Amino acid sequence: MNKQIILKSRPIGEVKVENFDILQVDVPKADKGELLVKAKYISVDPYMRGRMSDGKTNIPAFELNKPIIGGTVSEILESKQPGYKKGDLVVGPMAWQEIQSVQADKIALIDGLNVPPEYYLGILGMPGLTAYFGLLDIGKPQKGETVVISGAAGAVGLVVGQIARIRGCRVVGIAGTDEKIKYLKEILLFDEVINYKWERNLQKAVELACPNGTDIYFDNIGGPISDAVITTINKGARIIICGQISQYNAIDQSVGPSPQIILMKKSALMQGFSFTNYSSRYPEGFQALSTWLKDKKIIYKQTIIQGFENLPQALIGLFHGTNTGKLIVEV
Amino acid sequence: MNKQIILKSRPIGEVKVENFDILQVDVPKADKGELLVKAKYISVDPYMRGRMSDGKTNIPAFELNKPIIGGTVSEILESKQPGYKKGDLVVGPMAWQEIQSVQADKIALIDGLNVPPEYYLGILGMPGLTAYFGLLDIGKPQKGETVVISGAAGAVGLVVGQIARIRGCRVVGIAGTDEKIKYLKEILLFDEVINYKWERNLQKAVELACPNGTDIYFDNIGGPISDAVITTINKGARIIICGQISQYNAIDQSVGPSPQIILMKKSALMQGFSFTNYSSRYPEGFQALSTWLKDKKIIYKQTIIQGFENLPQALIGLFHGTNTGKLIVEV
Repeated sequence: MNKQIILKSRPIGEVKVENFDILQVDVPKADKGELLVKAKYISVDPYMRGRMSDGKTNIPAFELNKPIIGGTVSEILESKQPGYKKGDLVVGPMAWQEIQSVQADKIALIDGLNVPPEYYLGILGMPGLTAYFGLLDIGKPQKGETVVISGAAGAVGLVVGQIARIRGCRVVGIAGTDEKIKYLKEILLFDEVINYKWERNLQKAVELACPNGTDIYFDNIGGPISDAVITTINKGARIIICGQISQYNAIDQSVGPSPQIILMKKSALMQGFSFTNYSSRYPEGFQALSTWLKDKKIIYKQTIIQGFENLPQALIGLFHGTNTGKLIVEV
Repeated sequence: MNKQIILKSRPIGEVKVENFDILQVDVPKADKGELLVKAKYISVDPYMRGRMSDGKTNIPAFELNKPIIGGTVSEILESKQPGYKKGDLVVGPMAWQEIQSVQADKIALIDGLNVPPEYYLGILGMPGLTAYFGLLDIGKPQKGETVVISGAAGAVGLVVGQIARIRGCRVVGIAGTDEKIKYLKEILLFDEVINYKWERNLQKAVELACPNGTDIYFDNIGGPISDAVITTINKGARIIICGQISQYNAIDQSVGPSPQIILMKKSALMQGFSFTNYSSRYPEGFQALSTWLKDKKIIYKQTIIQGFENLPQALIGLFHGTNTGKLIVEV
């Protein structure tokens, strides 16, 4: 019994469970330099939608009839590489497969910070580093500035908001469920929160939440939410394009008000990025995030779904805003 | 006989001659600290469209029933300020009025570079500095990169292209008349030119002109031309939003394909700016442009319309692409 989940067909528009298939495969053997590992926590992330389609992007598409690949924390069952031993936990890109062999040099050992191991898929992994480099390197937040975050209760957004607060900014979070809004306001102490599903006039809501305008907009969502926020930017604003989750299932390219005129009038910047652009600075980001966690300057929230076979549904749920914080599947 | 042109009504959509009125006013007197000057060359520039409307922008709107203000080269008729004498030429913002008194500290003396005085409204003025700081400071062109310019034969665009060539870039110019295309290709020696009015598929035309993709897009135009160019950008591309002349007469905000997804996938930057952001560095820009002019590394092209009373029509012509190079009215 060793389950594997493959990409059976490429989604057109919304991802459906029919795009996946669950197979039973043999338990492999580990060769020299490899580790036999058993998945414990598997990450589902919005960027994976892009890899399901067959198009020109910077990340290669998943292959049809091959397993989905995603960030995973696994336990070593057998090691054929010095320095790794049975029972150690490792993190890195792995197939959606319960037991597999991986090359030791493609993954990293998790070595004993006093945090849940799945944090290496979140605050101490891609989402945390994305928040850190995007906000600090592109946004360059200054004390007293107003930072607006869309997808504020997501795996990246909630870290962005907390770093912005550490930097002395006024933080305004936009999210789409009561649970998320409550969490941002009451637990993370965001200065203002906006439930975009409640607002008839989102631009007005953002204006009310940002009486001094928006200096930094950290955008995870795109679409009409962004169109509203962009109307409120100040001179010299920085718009960080981290994600556009509202658009990932779109069949045609999104059409909306062109931001160019506003960028021109406001001498504002809009910058897309990937955390991988900062690979030479991962240690800096990791160090800062670990310290903030240890000092309780940042807290992290996860939604954990049980069961390997629920991976497809978990991924689909991302696009319906079901998760507060990082969404993880526990095998 | 002293003519003045005022803003009679604010345009809705396209500017019309009816939005202006020509009045006869008295010849004023110069007080202490002032100069009595006679206009010789008056600049018409796309940004002036914004000032004709009454809206929130960074530049205050022109007042109704008051003269239009614009960059002007004038000759001193009488000086009430030490250091300025009759016959000297001065440049700065002045009213659309043949003879007027101006505060000496609001304008600058033109002191004897061996260039036509109206160059201080173009290559050695706002358009030249706009090209210089936009391309070099935001675009950061590297040898061998491909630079695409919309409005390439305009007052700013033709300087951008020549600076890009000096920096060793491949330069692709987009313009809309045969005369402009010929000038860019045969006189300025741009590597490729595209007449957007001839192309059924502009995206394809840009792809053909940029076999290695677009590294820098210097945008003066906006709208569908930009939508096409943006599809061709490379990873790490810089899109410089200098102007959006195709949109200035629009009554509603332009709607088009949202650039955010492409910016995200390509880790690309889109930055609006005004040359006034660089006021502390004007001497650097002025020095560089003067030297390139003197060394014939850059040549400058103007379209000069005769007659003060033709100012409104000249301004309107900007939005129909009538000018190759800087458009100037000679009084």
